[in-house]
Amino acid sequence: MEDRLPDSLRERKQRRTRDAITEAALTLFAERGFDAVTVTDIAERAEVGRSTFFRYFADKREVLFADNGELLALLIAASDRAAGPLSPLGASLADALIVAHAGLLALTRRIADQSHWLALRARLIDEHPELQARHLTKERGYVAAGIETMMRHGAAPDTAALAAGLAAACFAAGHARTLATGQDLPTAVDAAFRQLAAVDTGALQAAIAGR
Amino acid sequence: MEDRLPDSLRERKQRRTRDAITEAALTLFAERGFDAVTVTDIAERAEVGRSTFFRYFADKREVLFADNGELLALLIAASDRAAGPLSPLGASLADALIVAHAGLLALTRRIADQSHWLALRARLIDEHPELQARHLTKERGYVAAGIETMMRHGAAPDTAALAAGLAAACFAAGHARTLATGQDLPTAVDAAFRQLAAVDTGALQAAIAGR
Repeated sequence: MEDRLPDSLRERKQRRTRDAITEAALTLFAERGFDAVTVTDIAERAEVGRSTFFRYFADKREVLFADNGELLALLIAASDRAAGPLSPLGASLADALIVAHAGLLALTRRIADQSHWLALRARLIDEHPELQARHLTKERGYVAAGIETMMRHGAAPDTAALAAGLAAACFAAGHARTLATGQDLPTAVDAAFRQLAAVDTGALQAAIAGR
Repeated sequence: MEDRLPDSLRERKQRRTRDAITEAALTLFAERGFDAVTVTDIAERAEVGRSTFFRYFADKREVLFADNGELLALLIAASDRAAGPLSPLGASLADALIVAHAGLLALTRRIADQSHWLALRARLIDEHPELQARHLTKERGYVAAGIETMMRHGAAPDTAALAAGLAAACFAAGHARTLATGQDLPTAVDAAFRQLAAVDTGALQAAIAGR
């Protein structure tokens, strides 16, 4: 994948360990439920020590957000590349959405690699308020990174904030569609963007002006 | 206001008591912080008994979401009225957004009555994960009610979900603008919708198709 970060042998080994812990944890969460699983259980299943676990994750909740840093980097890199030729973005919502779309697409392509965990992850977050709060914080991190990238390329703050929120809504709609139909995530998120891009703005403008 | 629910003498008295408890609680939260305030403090400040407090609210957190039922009813009523002449909504995102806009406008007009509490409320929710979870649940309730109303008027499920999410993003952008600039909430939310309705769909379509 063109969006992978540079790898070295040591980094590859670290990634393998992290992936093994993540797989072990998610398998156990699916088998026994989130609350019944301890860090010791996860470490045993992944065949690592507890101290190794804690070198990678602060606690068992953090495992569900394992890719956060990498996803954030992908989002920023892809947004940056898309924004370059459009700089300065100014108050153009279309340009800001083009940047947000590029960032989200890179993100969803990476998430799609773990698509077998999407439904479990969504259910666990939904059922556990403390995971919900952490999920919200991470999600806000993506939105904030998107806004920051657009503003670095000259987007008006209001426009950047609106575009990031609209893009997050397209992601949510696509994510829901993936969970409901099994359609792959990048295609589902892209479909939401396409529907937004095909909106009848004339009808919308007339109705809003009429109130 | 045309969107007020029917009132009787008893309902007006109940509303006065509920408003007095809400004002007392928010004043105390502002003075001492959320954690330091007890239900007994709130009841004393509102000059009611603890049992009266609990007739209106399950706990002190619930005070921050006092208007939820009324706002939900306003949202549904205004969405229903807007959807009527557009039925069946089908897969038209513009029509679904027109309905969502009407519902949100009714909601923001009612919230604007308590605009002096908007910033405090936003800060408290931001600082307390347990309030965040409850806020999320309520917010999802609005989105779900919007989707349900649109679908009752024949909207395709995917279109209804996308429109509700996009409308929520417009609300969030407007809310942020109100907190940042003091602009009144209905105007700020409307401005976000206008910017969305003015988006250059040609540029957006070309860019999305190009990936």
